[in-house]
Amino acid sequence: MKVRIHVSLKPGVLDPQGRAIQHSLEGLGFSGVNEVRQGKLIELDVDPAVTDDQLDEMCRKLLANMVIENYRIERVAQVESAQ
Amino acid sequence: MKVRIHVSLKPGVLDPQGRAIQHSLEGLGFSGVNEVRQGKLIELDVDPAVTDDQLDEMCRKLLANMVIENYRIERVAQVESAQ
Repeated sequence: MKVRIHVSLKPGVLDPQGRAIQHSLEGLGFSGVNEVRQGKLIELDVDPAVTDDQLDEMCRKLLANMVIENYRIERVAQVESAQ
Repeated sequence: MKVRIHVSLKPGVLDPQGRAIQHSLEGLGFSGVNEVRQGKLIELDVDPAVTDDQLDEMCRKLLANMVIENYRIERVAQVESAQ
């Protein structure tokens, strides 16, 4: 079973990487981009026996830094993962 | 308008970072994790006038390395972004 974990910086936390991307987009001539934030996307392939609580614990213990980051767990339906 | 861009390594491309995460999860006592892949999540705040073609071009020119990475563009509905 596939699980996607989206890790993003909390609002207000400085994101120099996102800033650099925004400036580069401007430099390439793209206008209308007001803000860019860069986060992490972690895709796990786990046994169906793994519970939501366990996934939550993985995020808190390792995958996200709870001081500066938020996370969101998304279980990917089998239909989508088969595409 | 919020846009999320998911950048992930193409299948078959070696992902040492994902491997390291997998080993760390095992070391922490989590079982049942078969594979881990790490990608990037780029959140843009763009003007509504920015078209899908422009977003596509941003990905191809800057945000994703088309040789080793795939990308997926997701426009976030206003309802969700207001949460």
